[in-house]
Amino acid sequence: MWADLAPLGRHPGTGGYRRFAWTREDADLREWFAGEVAARGMELVDDRAGNLWAWWGDPDRDGPGVVLGSHLDSVPDGGAFDGPLGVVSALAAVDALRARGLRPARPLAVAVFGDEEGARFGVACAGSRLLTGAMTPDRARGLTDGDGVSMAEALTRAGRDPGHVGRDEETLRRVGVFVELHVEQGRGLDQLDRAVAVGTGIWPHGRWRIDLPGEANHAGTTALDDRHDPMVTFASVVLAARGAAAWHDALATCGKVAVVPNGVNAVPSAVTAWLDARAPRADAARAVVEEVAGVVEVHGGTVTVESWTDRTSFDAPLAARLAALLGPPGSPAPRLATGAGHDAGILAAAGVPTAMLFVRNPTGVSHAPTEHAERADCHAGVAALAEVAADLSGDLAAAEPAP
Amino acid sequence: MWADLAPLGRHPGTGGYRRFAWTREDADLREWFAGEVAARGMELVDDRAGNLWAWWGDPDRDGPGVVLGSHLDSVPDGGAFDGPLGVVSALAAVDALRARGLRPARPLAVAVFGDEEGARFGVACAGSRLLTGAMTPDRARGLTDGDGVSMAEALTRAGRDPGHVGRDEETLRRVGVFVELHVEQGRGLDQLDRAVAVGTGIWPHGRWRIDLPGEANHAGTTALDDRHDPMVTFASVVLAARGAAAWHDALATCGKVAVVPNGVNAVPSAVTAWLDARAPRADAARAVVEEVAGVVEVHGGTVTVESWTDRTSFDAPLAARLAALLGPPGSPAPRLATGAGHDAGILAAAGVPTAMLFVRNPTGVSHAPTEHAERADCHAGVAALAEVAADLSGDLAAAEPAP
Repeated sequence: MWADLAPLGRHPGTGGYRRFAWTREDADLREWFAGEVAARGMELVDDRAGNLWAWWGDPDRDGPGVVLGSHLDSVPDGGAFDGPLGVVSALAAVDALRARGLRPARPLAVAVFGDEEGARFGVACAGSRLLTGAMTPDRARGLTDGDGVSMAEALTRAGRDPGHVGRDEETLRRVGVFVELHVEQGRGLDQLDRAVAVGTGIWPHGRWRIDLPGEANHAGTTALDDRHDPMVTFASVVLAARGAAAWHDALATCGKVAVVPNGVNAVPSAVTAWLDARAPRADAARAVVEEVAGVVEVHGGTVTVESWTDRTSFDAPLAARLAALLGPPGSPAPRLATGAGHDAGILAAAGVPTAMLFVRNPTGVSHAPTEHAERADCHAGVAALAEVAADLSGDLAAAEPAP
Repeated sequence: MWADLAPLGRHPGTGGYRRFAWTREDADLREWFAGEVAARGMELVDDRAGNLWAWWGDPDRDGPGVVLGSHLDSVPDGGAFDGPLGVVSALAAVDALRARGLRPARPLAVAVFGDEEGARFGVACAGSRLLTGAMTPDRARGLTDGDGVSMAEALTRAGRDPGHVGRDEETLRRVGVFVELHVEQGRGLDQLDRAVAVGTGIWPHGRWRIDLPGEANHAGTTALDDRHDPMVTFASVVLAARGAAAWHDALATCGKVAVVPNGVNAVPSAVTAWLDARAPRADAARAVVEEVAGVVEVHGGTVTVESWTDRTSFDAPLAARLAALLGPPGSPAPRLATGAGHDAGILAAAGVPTAMLFVRNPTGVSHAPTEHAERADCHAGVAALAEVAADLSGDLAAAEPAP
């Protein structure tokens, strides 16, 4: 499976993946998934948001079922593991369960969520947000990509009816529990020297837009004292964010900036920057933003919240059960929270019992071509996911008397 | 003239001008100039670089002549005065000389240089550089705009032969002296409480590209200590440039930056920034760049010079003569150097005797919609330019015996 996926959407120059929602590459990935599903005799259905569900068993008769899965799309020049590792591991777990003769008492599914990274339309987890109603269909249809193409238009071009998107009760009813396996995006497991962890939740996190006004002027003639240069303020903001994050044990990043007019010999008239802040505790993330806002306001700028998501806790008894299941007796698998958003977080917030498994990332690098997981750790992830699926679905074969 | 020019290329949203080389707006401006020239019975010729020359008298028979003028193009969302004030003032000076019955002993011309700001193809003073051979035709033809259109293609679309561009000896032979009037782009005259100054030269100035490598990573999961975040380095560079400029009595600006991938939740993999540095003395500008390079190199980045122009001195005896001419006895007009490049600087570097006049800018704002000069100061500029033109060209009428 890994070899078949490797070339899809890979940019030959950067070596990174460019797998964006409702593009040709996205269609190729969906076709690949459909082929894997057909080869296993599972039934493929899509929901109103365009997420894919491959069922082993009938969730409407014997459900709700146990759903494994993740996503196949990527950030610009992303790595091979973020998303696809969860989908491939879920399919491999089905194979492992069948190889050992399991007959699941509850139906099992492998799900592929669409548009998880939000790389094209700017909203992460668009597929699971639409499915659960966390994003309205109107908002989704009106989102536009960098070329000004709306999601409605992109859906139409992909052969889908944009009028059909929206919260999908029928699909949600089929999901009894969702388990997403994902490559870790930090070095927690590396530091613990373990291959697999159970997720406990997602840190509070948010995005803020910072508008810094300035006065356009000629770079060659305007005295320093006569300048209102928003690039200098931006520089102070970046360093303030970094310093505040270090102080409050939080993460803060200025990864995106837009400069007007962005000319070599022009003092900018305006700079817009975005701040991403996250922390294990909401008050720490907010403290970072407050410190940054202090710097911004001194220079006449404004800080506007674009999104804020409070802590998402996965089902705690479920996490404890899985941790115990995956460790040797007396040494449960480690439990880790993450700063990254996931479809699992959206489903958990919507009331679906949810768990995550993380697979060791030796460098912690993610969202980059060098993102990596060792083969042995990936195999450990598949074994863990199979173990979890067997435990959650139950085994009819084991319940029957031996022949 | 001012009222006719006001709407051409003005953006209704920003109120600024977008007059870029070889566009529809550029053609409108050239058509406006041709109309003014025809109304005055002057002869309009263009040179191999597409600069326009309106002659009063025959420079091939009675030349070389006295040339006044400037440019009509603008930076993005530029002001109304930078360039057009020099062209309008030159035409008005011709009118003033005729009104007083002057018959110039040497031919007089009004020139409009093309593509002075370099806003479209990235090279400032493209028209005068091509005219003098300071830029090769091959380099010019290969320059591309933001849409990937080459200058060769733009010339073709504008009905010109790109094979024809190049150093134009015939045109240069006609130019005995060039005087460019320009709105001041700082507050020198405002601080001196004078309306008009004579230019002495152009500061040494240059552009440097700063490449800052980083490691792409997830903003939500990568510990601060594990990051190689080039945006943080960029922030240090901006503040170092500002501090070094203040220390060395120079100007330094980071007005342009490009971030990869420029995503809200992505630690950038690379940042490219541009530094514009200028100072009255070359060693001061270089000292700023050296200090910035120190910061850059600590973080594994590189600094590459993109352009460097040493001090350009205008003809010093000519400047002294014009200053004496323009002030009341014993109080010559002030003489100012500028940090901005001009076509006058390109011609001076090519050996043409050259002078500049600056008209007071009450706020110093330039390259912005609020760029301004008072009407009375503009009239003083016209009067000064007429005085200078009369002095340089000589008056046949005055040399003849009274009837």
